[in-house]
Amino acid sequence: MSINQMPSRVILQEEGPREGFQSEAHIPVEDKLSLIHALAETGLEVINCASFVSSRVPQMADAEEIAARLQKRPGVKYLGMWLNGKGFDRALASGLDLVPNVFASVSDTFARNNNGRSAQEVVVAQGAMIERYQAAGLGLRAAHLFTAFGCPYEGKADPDGSVKMLDALLQVCAEHDELPGIVYLCDTVGAADPLSIRATLDKVRNRWPSMEIGLHLHDTRGMGLSNVFAALQCGVRRFDTSVAGLGGCPFAGNSAAAGNVCTEDVAFMCEEMGIDTGLDLDRLADVARMAEAIVGHPLPGKFMKAGPIRKRPLGAVAC
Amino acid sequence: MSINQMPSRVILQEEGPREGFQSEAHIPVEDKLSLIHALAETGLEVINCASFVSSRVPQMADAEEIAARLQKRPGVKYLGMWLNGKGFDRALASGLDLVPNVFASVSDTFARNNNGRSAQEVVVAQGAMIERYQAAGLGLRAAHLFTAFGCPYEGKADPDGSVKMLDALLQVCAEHDELPGIVYLCDTVGAADPLSIRATLDKVRNRWPSMEIGLHLHDTRGMGLSNVFAALQCGVRRFDTSVAGLGGCPFAGNSAAAGNVCTEDVAFMCEEMGIDTGLDLDRLADVARMAEAIVGHPLPGKFMKAGPIRKRPLGAVAC
Repeated sequence: MSINQMPSRVILQEEGPREGFQSEAHIPVEDKLSLIHALAETGLEVINCASFVSSRVPQMADAEEIAARLQKRPGVKYLGMWLNGKGFDRALASGLDLVPNVFASVSDTFARNNNGRSAQEVVVAQGAMIERYQAAGLGLRAAHLFTAFGCPYEGKADPDGSVKMLDALLQVCAEHDELPGIVYLCDTVGAADPLSIRATLDKVRNRWPSMEIGLHLHDTRGMGLSNVFAALQCGVRRFDTSVAGLGGCPFAGNSAAAGNVCTEDVAFMCEEMGIDTGLDLDRLADVARMAEAIVGHPLPGKFMKAGPIRKRPLGAVAC
Repeated sequence: MSINQMPSRVILQEEGPREGFQSEAHIPVEDKLSLIHALAETGLEVINCASFVSSRVPQMADAEEIAARLQKRPGVKYLGMWLNGKGFDRALASGLDLVPNVFASVSDTFARNNNGRSAQEVVVAQGAMIERYQAAGLGLRAAHLFTAFGCPYEGKADPDGSVKMLDALLQVCAEHDELPGIVYLCDTVGAADPLSIRATLDKVRNRWPSMEIGLHLHDTRGMGLSNVFAALQCGVRRFDTSVAGLGGCPFAGNSAAAGNVCTEDVAFMCEEMGIDTGLDLDRLADVARMAEAIVGHPLPGKFMKAGPIRKRPLGAVAC
């Protein structure tokens, strides 16, 4: 894959309400609903609203209530997320939009610590998930490759190792006569740099030339937008993002608290480079400030503070 | 200029003590000296320590005291900065290292608001500065092009306009038999995006193929590191950076308060991509935390909070 294949249009999938609130103290359901409703007015096409993983993440125990009380805007997909069969059953019953998916972890140590199973066992278990989707009359839609660029235990990922694990995951899909329409490479803990983004995308595209690839990036070490730019140069058109950088905290002393790349910052960069996002940046900035008010502390997004380039008179600025 | 000319080595010039403290309330001289001394232990080769512009920036009124009390480490350059003849005389008398320089502003409105003169008048005035340097037995070393990528009054800069203004500035230099060894393109208010960085660098390099170019970037809208990456792809090897992102503030309601790109975040990205910085990242992170303690509020740098990728065991992290 050569670089300089910048897309003319990108789709940002909003992760703030789902992933962003995980790292916060209890947020009232009313506030979560207000944020989701406001996000739906910004042009976002896909909003991940809730995680059906309540036993592990108490902040998400209100998934059913959120789903039940959502006022849906036509044309917007409101997703729910799950990690096992029980979660899927809950998501299915909730009435939220579903993207039946499988996942794998490149890092074996991460899988053992996060999923309680080896990376290989996680892959094998996906077969049963696909069968569950099929029993519900649903086809497989997406695959997620966690720690695709590294993890805190094993360090930086080898792109060949990521390809190998994705191969094993897609093998399980093929054995069930399924192929995901999109594969998300997830920088779960913010270990990617622009060159490792490009190296991994190159390897994955060489192996599966026609497969659509999305990126799920965390801005743990400040490289989030440079990683987005590197991916855009490789033609990637789908990114998971989080309004205001929700999930991150400027004071965080550990990398687990870093959020996804910030929706309105990514959107602003894209629009400045002539890439259409379909988003209303002014409204997104308003929602980002709303998110700050809801969590009660500053969030890392920058566009909401600085605004567009031509904004208002400044006083003298030393350079 | 084609992309994919990544340098093997970069030089980061530290701007924190000079530019970073400008946006802070009064900082005791002792604290400034402590920070400069600590920075000098991290491998930094050039540290901009003081501005001789006290009449406009009260926070810098202690420039002479800083210069007098510095304990210099061999091999490190301790710079002072000025914007006019009076400031240069003070810098010359201070004993700090000098980089005799000229400057211009691409934005006429910015020049009128910031320098009280038209952009053309600013350029013409540089002739007298060069004569002053020559009278002191010093040659011209650098040129700075302010608002090279845009300003809040006129919006995004046209790369051709930046080339034209730089041409006028270099013309004044040539009329005085001088040529700066390096030209800094300054994104004074954080208006650049990765593609405008590349477009401007392309135009400047096409016009002056052998001239060394440095970048002075502000991370006003979150694109700082993506702009650094775009410049690295174009072979740029010199960047002005600020430890901890000093000069920025996560709470800032206006773009004037955004600092330079963060020294240790830029250094970490470079090192992750195999580009040598000559810097000790652990020590830099310590100094970044020292900077936060000095200013008494969180600073935007991320590496100092997250640390290197392989660091310590994490608990379960949802992806």
